[in-house]
Amino acid sequence: MVKQTKTAEASLEALHRIFTVPEAPHSTLGKIEQAISQNLNSFLQDHITSSDYSLTDIEKDFSNPHIPEQPAFVSDHTEFLLEKLVAQSVHTSSPRFIGHMTSALPYFLMPLSKIMIGLNQNTVKIETSKAFTPLERQVLGMLHNMIYQREEAFYQSWMHSAEHSLGAFCSGGTIANITALWVARNAALRADGDFRGVAEEGLFRAMRHYGYDDLAILVSERGHYSLKKAADVLGIGRQSLIAIPTDANNRICIDKLETKLAELKARNVKVFAIVGVAGTTETGNIDPLDKLADIAGREGIHFHVDAAWGGASLMSQNQRPKLKGIERADSVTIDAHKQLYVPMGAGMVIFKDPSLVSAIEHHADYILRKGSKDLGSHTLEGSRSGMAMLLFASLNIIGREGYQLLIDQSVDKARYFADLIQTQPDFELISEPELCLLTYRYVPEVVRAALEKASPAQKDAIHSLLNDLTVFVQKHQREAGNTFVSRTTLKPEPLERRETRVFRVVLANPLTTHAILQEVLVEQREIAKRSTIAYPELLTLANSIVTA
Amino acid sequence: MVKQTKTAEASLEALHRIFTVPEAPHSTLGKIEQAISQNLNSFLQDHITSSDYSLTDIEKDFSNPHIPEQPAFVSDHTEFLLEKLVAQSVHTSSPRFIGHMTSALPYFLMPLSKIMIGLNQNTVKIETSKAFTPLERQVLGMLHNMIYQREEAFYQSWMHSAEHSLGAFCSGGTIANITALWVARNAALRADGDFRGVAEEGLFRAMRHYGYDDLAILVSERGHYSLKKAADVLGIGRQSLIAIPTDANNRICIDKLETKLAELKARNVKVFAIVGVAGTTETGNIDPLDKLADIAGREGIHFHVDAAWGGASLMSQNQRPKLKGIERADSVTIDAHKQLYVPMGAGMVIFKDPSLVSAIEHHADYILRKGSKDLGSHTLEGSRSGMAMLLFASLNIIGREGYQLLIDQSVDKARYFADLIQTQPDFELISEPELCLLTYRYVPEVVRAALEKASPAQKDAIHSLLNDLTVFVQKHQREAGNTFVSRTTLKPEPLERRETRVFRVVLANPLTTHAILQEVLVEQREIAKRSTIAYPELLTLANSIVTA
Repeated sequence: MVKQTKTAEASLEALHRIFTVPEAPHSTLGKIEQAISQNLNSFLQDHITSSDYSLTDIEKDFSNPHIPEQPAFVSDHTEFLLEKLVAQSVHTSSPRFIGHMTSALPYFLMPLSKIMIGLNQNTVKIETSKAFTPLERQVLGMLHNMIYQREEAFYQSWMHSAEHSLGAFCSGGTIANITALWVARNAALRADGDFRGVAEEGLFRAMRHYGYDDLAILVSERGHYSLKKAADVLGIGRQSLIAIPTDANNRICIDKLETKLAELKARNVKVFAIVGVAGTTETGNIDPLDKLADIAGREGIHFHVDAAWGGASLMSQNQRPKLKGIERADSVTIDAHKQLYVPMGAGMVIFKDPSLVSAIEHHADYILRKGSKDLGSHTLEGSRSGMAMLLFASLNIIGREGYQLLIDQSVDKARYFADLIQTQPDFELISEPELCLLTYRYVPEVVRAALEKASPAQKDAIHSLLNDLTVFVQKHQREAGNTFVSRTTLKPEPLERRETRVFRVVLANPLTTHAILQEVLVEQREIAKRSTIAYPELLTLANSIVTA
Repeated sequence: MVKQTKTAEASLEALHRIFTVPEAPHSTLGKIEQAISQNLNSFLQDHITSSDYSLTDIEKDFSNPHIPEQPAFVSDHTEFLLEKLVAQSVHTSSPRFIGHMTSALPYFLMPLSKIMIGLNQNTVKIETSKAFTPLERQVLGMLHNMIYQREEAFYQSWMHSAEHSLGAFCSGGTIANITALWVARNAALRADGDFRGVAEEGLFRAMRHYGYDDLAILVSERGHYSLKKAADVLGIGRQSLIAIPTDANNRICIDKLETKLAELKARNVKVFAIVGVAGTTETGNIDPLDKLADIAGREGIHFHVDAAWGGASLMSQNQRPKLKGIERADSVTIDAHKQLYVPMGAGMVIFKDPSLVSAIEHHADYILRKGSKDLGSHTLEGSRSGMAMLLFASLNIIGREGYQLLIDQSVDKARYFADLIQTQPDFELISEPELCLLTYRYVPEVVRAALEKASPAQKDAIHSLLNDLTVFVQKHQREAGNTFVSRTTLKPEPLERRETRVFRVVLANPLTTHAILQEVLVEQREIAKRSTIAYPELLTLANSIVTA
């Protein structure tokens, strides 16, 4: 053993203490823990300051590239984190912040998270996760059952089978979508005669073997950007993710899909996946899944549904009909960190057929041995935490009926807000809520009147100014820090498919009240009227048209 | 708004309470929180029971595929989790469990994790993470600096630049390796003339454009299994991940690499990445990185170093020379949840050149807009938690010198254990520790004597029985639950490259003592001697050879 100086030994002794001596209740961290346990919301309210600190200011606090040589006191560093990090973070659980898909968390998840982190299991293999492996398999089974509602015997046969898997738990919807399309690609280009499959021989040889001129994935133009990433990673190429136009309700146009399919077939392009969107990120609309299932079934194409957002709605018997056809999908993506109300980092892909994952099965000698029940044989990720525990607890503690109430109230609230917008003389609803998302914009009364009479060129000019105004309002509203909505760009049919900037709201937080929604409109109207950008020109232009 | 019955309203009211009313200090969860805060280790010791419950037994507890209709009391469900999940999980932080790469966690990370989860930031974009974005960029900068030690101005230019990134934080080493190879593939098959690059047009067109007959990635036979997964996902094919033999110290044979390179060049195969391993998963050995850098540089090939395990050793000036050459790598994978002692789910890939990530840059309209500093533009994952905060805190609180002590003591302890094994008459050291990993096996004294005299056929027979014995001992030791080592299969040169089952230990836990290591050998010897499998035949065979 290397001889150590007394100082090094003493330091090592001191270091051991961070592993063995807990933070005292009256230490800075001890007090924070208690504050969070007692009232998370007021802890966040007290510590997140909506200062006029810009991103550039914050960057100055986080710009030292040197790992400090000397250790720091926990309390000192905690003070730094409170002042510089927590103070400048986003209050994602605030009922007044209705622009994100992250929402409030149930209280019981805080102590449960602590257990999960303290246990520090690694779910890649049973050796480092033991009961967490069956638990995760059960969670996947419960979600499978929510979607596919298969008979009891089905789950008893496959839920804990070593060679099968009802899905994969992962860090989020992007990895879930990539996993689903990876499975679809490998299944379409599977082993055949001398050819040992794309997994083994690669895409280049696969294409030569099958004689296709190209590959393609079809999805509506509202598909999530992660699908493009998937097409890139998987070697298909982004251009082969083909966007099909949507109708006035942001749903894929079936006739345009059929036309594209026929065209690709004629060009010898193999379509290996059709992706249905169940809850678009921007508007929350749901594709006609049953019709997509018909087409995919007829053509023998893998049918994937990206229900990262909308999947949770299956919990409600009232919303379930909106997703009709999802039970025919070969694979479904669902994010638990969205409307299943668990913390960030909990995505899932669920497979209808438990043997589908064999297309991506991996083994190694020191891990994931053949015949083992190690979860890592069927996941894109390797080492993973015991996150499934938090979803498991939520499913049990909230229960299906509890989730139904949470989902229904979010949809009701979106309906309320849509109605509220429509009764305002100076707000315009752009997309109707199907789930709890909607989009709208601010259009001053005189501008609405002017649009009735405007020439095409005038319409273009007004439209462009309205876009600038929307961007201005959203930005200043965010900076003020009182309420928050997000924004996106749509090409709505009623607006002649012009690129339209819109406010986007997601009403998932159960604590958001009608009063808050009313306040949001009041605040936006005020910001708009104070705007030195676009607003004055808009009024001048509109007045000139109206009085012409 | 939909009219609700009074019951539904009352239930919704009750549901709101889980978001607004904290767990009482005297509730089941409240008490658990306190127990964890006061003494995590004794909480785990008290609650993780090493029962003779088999996996099949556990599966029975986790086999109901139905999401319960009705909500459950938090306390009832917590009791269930304690009894069925926590009791049957793995005590990964026990100093007596020396078979995993997961180890004990510093205490301060428990309350900090709670802050992180309570804040529930989404680091995919600034809008939902604010200061967490600069913080994560700083962490990547600190790790970049640890590896590449560039000048101050370099970090001030690139750390917070919108179009650049010094790396990507991700859920683990697998995603980090995939990201690195994705970058390497896209950079090798970049846009060129009319060809818009593999990201856009896909692998099939890329190969036609560049005129290659195949692609390849080269790595030693000890490379991590995630690289095979990467080759599959990226469309290269597993067969194109080419394993180069290793020497007696589990390091890649440079001459065999050169031969393979020449052969592939002659066959018009484009090698787009050479992967050096810095800390093999099985033995902890480090490839000659400087020589690999020479070759990659000469050939213009992307040089990636998988330092998921060994990267942390750069913290120690005493270990750093072992990784010489890593500072010439184009990309490096490091897992913080390994020897940087943060909880599961913290991997990173670091890029030498901050513009390399442009090869995988993604944008969308409602998120990751061009020019934004959103981290999501350069990551494989989408939504991600604020995990980087925990590494940031550890780097600051432990400090470089603190990490140096932790790393050095782990290496010293491995040296101690190797020496201890070598002084035993009945244990055989298989791989010498270079970092804190080593492998060994149990070989009864008489068997060692017999091996000196045995014929090749007898050697084979003994070898096969020893393999069975190793598997038996490891399995029974694990089941007894007192201590734990893992096992793997190697083909050691001194054993004529026979497939050899070995015990594998990882001595990262700072709380593991010399006494525990002595105990491990005592326990293994006892289990071996009680074995009804292999042991009696081994003795009989050995005795017959020795007395022949």
